[in-house]
Parts: sequence; C-alpha cells; structure tokens
Amino acid sequence: MVGSVGNGLMDLREKEKVEPLPREFDPEEIARPKPPLETEGVGGEEGSGKSREIVLGRNVHTMCFAIKEPEADDEVTGEREAYMASVLARYRRSLIDRTKHHLGYPYNLDFDYGALGQLQHFSINNLGDPFIESNYGVHSRQFEVGVLDWFARLWELEKNEYWGYITNCGTEGNLHGILVGREVFPDGVLYASRESHYSIFKAARMYRMECVKVDTLVSGEIDCTHFKASLLQNMERPAIVNVNIGTTVKGAVDDLDMVIKTLEENGFKDRFYIHCDGALFGLMMPFVKRAPKVTFTKPIGSVSVSGHKFVGCPMPCGVQITRSKHINVLSSNVEYLASRDATIMGSRNGHAPIFLWYTLNRKGYRGFQKEVQKCLRNAHYLKDRLKEAGISVMLNELSSTVVFERPKDEEFVRQWQLACEGNIAHVVVMPNVTIDKLDSFLNELLRHRSCWYQEGNISPPCIAADIGEENCCCALHRR
Amino acid sequence: MVGSVGNGLMDLREKEKVEPLPREFDPEEIARPKPPLETEGVGGEEGSGKSREIVLGRNVHTMCFAIKEPEADDEVTGEREAYMASVLARYRRSLIDRTKHHLGYPYNLDFDYGALGQLQHFSINNLGDPFIESNYGVHSRQFEVGVLDWFARLWELEKNEYWGYITNCGTEGNLHGILVGREVFPDGVLYASRESHYSIFKAARMYRMECVKVDTLVSGEIDCTHFKASLLQNMERPAIVNVNIGTTVKGAVDDLDMVIKTLEENGFKDRFYIHCDGALFGLMMPFVKRAPKVTFTKPIGSVSVSGHKFVGCPMPCGVQITRSKHINVLSSNVEYLASRDATIMGSRNGHAPIFLWYTLNRKGYRGFQKEVQKCLRNAHYLKDRLKEAGISVMLNELSSTVVFERPKDEEFVRQWQLACEGNIAHVVVMPNVTIDKLDSFLNELLRHRSCWYQEGNISPPCIAADIGEENCCCALHRR
Repeated sequence: MVGSVGNGLMDLREKEKVEPLPREFDPEEIARPKPPLETEGVGGEEGSGKSREIVLGRNVHTMCFAIKEPEADDEVTGEREAYMASVLARYRRSLIDRTKHHLGYPYNLDFDYGALGQLQHFSINNLGDPFIESNYGVHSRQFEVGVLDWFARLWELEKNEYWGYITNCGTEGNLHGILVGREVFPDGVLYASRESHYSIFKAARMYRMECVKVDTLVSGEIDCTHFKASLLQNMERPAIVNVNIGTTVKGAVDDLDMVIKTLEENGFKDRFYIHCDGALFGLMMPFVKRAPKVTFTKPIGSVSVSGHKFVGCPMPCGVQITRSKHINVLSSNVEYLASRDATIMGSRNGHAPIFLWYTLNRKGYRGFQKEVQKCLRNAHYLKDRLKEAGISVMLNELSSTVVFERPKDEEFVRQWQLACEGNIAHVVVMPNVTIDKLDSFLNELLRHRSCWYQEGNISPPCIAADIGEENCCCALHRR
Repeated sequence: MVGSVGNGLMDLREKEKVEPLPREFDPEEIARPKPPLETEGVGGEEGSGKSREIVLGRNVHTMCFAIKEPEADDEVTGEREAYMASVLARYRRSLIDRTKHHLGYPYNLDFDYGALGQLQHFSINNLGDPFIESNYGVHSRQFEVGVLDWFARLWELEKNEYWGYITNCGTEGNLHGILVGREVFPDGVLYASRESHYSIFKAARMYRMECVKVDTLVSGEIDCTHFKASLLQNMERPAIVNVNIGTTVKGAVDDLDMVIKTLEENGFKDRFYIHCDGALFGLMMPFVKRAPKVTFTKPIGSVSVSGHKFVGCPMPCGVQITRSKHINVLSSNVEYLASRDATIMGSRNGHAPIFLWYTLNRKGYRGFQKEVQKCLRNAHYLKDRLKEAGISVMLNELSSTVVFERPKDEEFVRQWQLACEGNIAHVVVMPNVTIDKLDSFLNELLRHRSCWYQEGNISPPCIAADIGEENCCCALHRR
C-alpha cells in the first residue's frame, strides 16, 4: 500500500499509513533495506529483500495554512484578523492535546516561561562568538555566558580553559564537535558506533571524512572489541571518536573510560580527539549516583547537550563546550575561523540562552538532581509494569529510556507519539511524564494489545535480537 | 593599546577599546593584515604590515549574569524570584534603548507578535523534513509549508518542483545551498566574490572544496571579467557559484544574468550550479521596479533569504528554496540524506515559521512593496543629506544600504550600532528606520563631526578606493 519510488505519487491517505519514522530517531533505518510496513511490527528484519520505499520526486503537501493576499478592504472588515485568530486558536488547542499525549521524544514539556513573555518583542541576536561582543546591541551574551559557565563547571573545565556557545540543536553541537576534531587532526578517521545519532554520519559526509561504524552490544553501547579491531586497521591515522552519552534509541551510555583505555593501549595516546554527544543524558548523568563521569579531567575534547530536552525550552537549542586551546588552534590556523568565527551558525537565537538561564537559576543542581531521580524512578515503574504484563522490555541502567515491543497499530503509535525503530519502540521518561500519565498509557496499551494478539491466541514477536534474550517475553524466551 | 596574542590577557576597558568588528559584517577583515585601530578611521589600509591582533587563549568574560545555586530557604523568602525579576526588568529596559538606537544591521525591529504570545508555552519542533511528518506531534509544519509555498511562488518555482525549509539563519541557508551544489558536482570549484558573506568561505573550508575568490567592482558587485579569467583556469571542473543578492557591506547586487552568460559562453553550460545568497535583498528585490529578477526560470539552483531581516522576527531564521530534483539527487545518491534527511539541522525551531506566516499573511505582497519603497525613499533621503553635508557617501541603485565615511569615534559607532569595515560604515534603512530617526542620527553625526575634524581644519579621509572617486568628498576628490 505504499507509493513506489517510480511514480513518486501518493495521496494523502496513503501517506498517513506509511508515514516514515521520525527523523530524530532513526540513524539506522536510512542505511539498510527494510520490509514494507505491514510486517514491520511482527516479522524479523532479515529475509526481506525489498528495499524501503521512500517517496521522492515530489513534496507531499499535507494540510497547510496557505498565505493569501489580503483583500483591499481587509482593514475595514477585519476579516483577515479574524481568520488568523481562528487559525491560531485552533492550532493552540491541537498543541495542548498533542503536548498531553507525548511519550516518545526526550523533550521536557513542563516549563513556564511566562515571566519571559515581555522579551518576545525584541529581535535578540547573539551573532558570532559569545565572548566577543558585536556592535549589534540587542543581544543576550550576558545570559549566554552565565549558562556556559554553569555547564563548564558541571563538566569540570576552568573558566579560562573552556570555550563554548549555545547552539540551535543537538545536531549543531555534533557538527561543531566533529569539525573541531577534524581541524585538530585533519587526517583523522572518525569512529562512531552504529547507534550514534544520524547527525554524526551527516557530519562525516559533509566534512569529507572517512568514517568507521563500530558495532554495538545488545544494550546499545559501543563494542570496544570491535572498536579496537577497527583502530588497528588505521594505525597510521589519528582517531576522532564520537562517544554517546545516551544513544537515541536505547539510551545506552558508551563506556568512556573503556574507550579511552582502548585508544591509549593501542598506540593512540595523544593522537585522538573525543567528542561526547550528550544530547539528553549529558545533563542527567552528573546527577545519577554511581554513573561514570563525563568530565574534562579525562582526555576528551568536547561535550554537547540539548537544551530543549532535559531542561525544556519552547524551541530547540543546545550547549556546546570545548577546550579553548582547540578553538585557538582553529582560530590561528584556519583563515575562516580567525577572529574566532568559531560557531557553525552566524546569527544566533538570543532568546534560547535566556530560557536556559531562567530554568538553571530556578532549579539549580539540586532541582535537577530531584528531577533526574524522579525520572529514573518512573522509568523503573513503567518497566516493571510492562514486565508484569508479559511485554518484552529493556531499561538500561542509568537511563530513563524504556525500550519495549513495538505496538502493532500505527494509530496508537501516533496517538502517544512514540518513537519506533524496527521491532522496538521507546518511551523516554521526562520530568513531565507522571505516574498518572504512564498509567493511562499502560491501560490503553494493554487494552489494545489484547485485541492485537487476540487475548493470547497470537504470539507476540521475538525481539531478543534487539533487547537481549533475558528481556524478551516471546513464546521461546519467556520463562 | 591592544592585548597581544602572546599573553592573551586584556582587561575589560582595553577590550572595549579594541572591540572587533561585528562578525556578521566582516568577510574580508579576517583574511588580511590590518593596521591598529587608532589609525583605522583615517589612514589607508595598505602600507601597514602589522597584523591584526586578536585576543586568543582566553575567554573575555564581560558582564555576565552568573547562575547561582538556590538557597534552601529561597522558596520561603522569594529572594530568588525577586532577583531574577529585577535582572529581567533591567535587561528589558536596556533592550528598549538598544532597539531604539540601531541603524547598522539589516534587522527590521518593527514587529508586533503579541497574538503569538499564547504559543510560547509549547515546545514546537519541526524536526527533519518539512514535507515528511514525524511522530512528534507538537510541530508547525502546516505553517512552514504555507510560508515555503509563498516564497516558491515569489521566486517562480512550481509547488511540485521545489523543496525547501525554514532555517535558523542566513548562514544555514548558505551552508545548505553550497552543500547541494557540491553534491550535484562533487568535483566542482566554488566561485564567490570577495565581498560575499563569510559563511560562504566557511562552507568551502567545512566541505573541503576548492574556492576561488573573485574580484569586485567598486560598487561591490562581482567583476565578471575576473570571473571569466578564473573560470578559464579551471575549465575541466564544473563551477559552483555564489551570487550575492545584496552584499553584506555595500548592498551590491551581483549581475545574475551576466554571471550566467559568462558561464554559458565559456563552456560551462549544464556544468554549473548557482546559489543565490539573498539574505536581505532576496525579499526586497522582487518589489523594486526595474530590478533584475531572481527567479527559478533562470538556471539557478537555490535561493536563501533571512527571515529576521526584512520580515522581522524575534529570533534569527531564514528560508531556503531549491529544486526538488537536486534534493532527489542527494536523497538517492547519498546514504546520510536518504529518506530526505536533507536539512542541515535536525531539530528545528517551530516558532519561526509561525512568526513568518503571521507577517506574510498580514502584509502580503502589497504590504511588502509599500515597505520596500519607503526604505528606498528613506535611504535616498539619508544619502542626499550626507552629501549636502560634504560627507563621502555611496548608495547602490536598488539598495537601501547607505555606505559612508566611518565615524572617527568608536563610542558613536557603538551608540548607533553601525557596522563598519576599514574606512567605511553603513546604515541599512529598514522599515523601522524613520525619517525622524535618520534626522536625529544626522544631527548627532554632524555635531560630533565638527569636533573630530575641528570645523574643517582637519581633512576627512579619502575613501575613493572604497566607494569611487565620484562619491568621495575628500580634499582631493571634492568638486
């Protein structure tokens, strides 16, 4: 029932059925052939030679609010204003509903920035470097630097040894980190686990870098045995390594210490650059007891984290921190980065730093710690309830990402805005995800599931390959 | 009086004196040696072998609002809330003042988005492709696609032949356009005039492309004679060309038709890709009578324009439009762009499209036309007044960027937030720049100037090299 690449046409209803997986979530889907969607929830991935069908050649214009030329008498009749107000009011209602039913993306939707409404009337732009003022006076560098200082302290880098800026999103942080790595080691090979965010592979392509995809364990962590083998094949070239502090799909934390050990024991001492992609967990880990530490006291080069994820922010943003010596290398060696044109973007959103400043100030380390603990508690609650109900489920230690059997019905997936990959789905338990919300999700899931599997007459799929035998509740692995 | 690279330290007062030029404005400064600032306003640039001194090695922490841990009793005393409210109130006051005194940057600060305040409570994210919905429901694609349709119509590209998205800023548009060009012609050489925005040269470096800087005429336009000579040196490789629809400094519009003619007459037919950087004028030109047209009926590949400039928006944003066939080439050929991961960023600000949608709907083509005409009228007014006063000044036809002799006093430059390069400064006349504002600027300038040049006893500098002899009012060129 999907449109083929050949004719490139599909009507609206068809599109809704075959909606592709969310882009933010989906590093692997892109690369490999896939079975058609009907069988995706139940069948294995292997064995189907049919390649994934993507509709190209044509934009799919789903519902869109067209812009119309004002009529000459609009000012008099007020019709235009009325039309726009009605569009916005309806839109606002849908946002309320969509915000309520949301479990799959690691966005903290629980924020109140009412006090900042007064600033929406200003065109705030932190163009260029946070530490070098431009003549454009309507900026928020004083907030931005406050936020950067906070993060540098969190990751243990001295004020005069760090450089950083507030980015537009996690991808910009990764693009920056990998670029810094490449400029430090122009001939370096990029290593990243297969479960890294897709922006890492995009960076490799953009920057024309050789990139080695390293295997992962079932947990989603980088497989250091394979990492070592890959390194040994490129002994003569320095290593640029992306380390995931929480993978997108399984919330797996790469073992930073093991990665460093592998590098140093195999002849790469002082010949590597590590970028830590901490999109979500970069801000949670420091508050988890017994978690291995992400810190610049270890030989890492940069850390990035998203601002709209754990902190919560009306628009995407992120924080990028690196060692100032790397930026200096760039600035002095590279024509285009001289005078510290060291950010990826030029004009930069000046509102985002104020949102972050506001939340960090209000909550403080202690506030975040409380929220992290709540998230982990609630994630365990969800996992336990799913397990009790005989549903395959995995929860990595240190993570609030609960991975489980993909719901069979796409409508259900869409309703709860779950993020799915292959046979698995996940819920990311964020501060706005309460026990109440989880209960109503669980109840609905169980109700639907008894239909999907005809109260046990049909067997749910085996997902041991994705989450490990010990977590799988299929007929074979159920104990 | 500037800190040296060696010790890397400068105190706050020193920093203020040597504040570097604004990054957005400054493609050339970066590359060439510069005299120290004391002489910059009056002396020529050549002849001084002293290289520009940039302070590296250390972040300059100017005033910053530090984030402090909340005290245990903050909830009770309300001290923290009070502190934050006072910071924000003071900040708001300064924004009002800074917004009032602003002439140098092409940002339309005249907008009222009060009706959209109700949406600030939502985390709106258009992650990935605008035409492929993700499962994340809190998005604004229906607004984004409406805006894109409007721009595609403006630049005459059919709905089913364009692809585009709303970017974070002009730089993202340029990064995207140049990347598309490179993927279409992987072996292509990038050509851009010296006065192109610095993001173009940043792209070349990021993407590891060979880049040829083409000379410019005094007006700031690309010199097609030199362009031709450059092409002839690289006959065997396709050409990727950045065409400026309004340069940053002089508001010069490259002659698109002449660029195309030069390419086609010199053996590059069907072997070139043109990206039009229309940051500001991309949206003004269509409304200027007799202006050469930027349109996809000509063999161009992409156009980008900033959203926070002529339209006006609280945060930076931009619009990028390209031919869908190019995106299809990317999507099918390039692993990391399959399934149309075709944007530079992943998560994307969902508020920006709503701001743009709101203004486009309210103003329409007719509204923009009126505003463009007003800007051009006011720009001519400013130019005439400066000329009358005996001040060297240039205004390109079709442009609202008035280029004139750089004010001698940096305090004055900062006060009016002028953008300067070498011996010249400019005012960009935007819709929020009224005759009243220009008058108060002119009066203040003339008052100061009579001090700087001691009522005519000291001669103002010659800037014929920058703006042409006919526009220069120095002792030599004054008629």
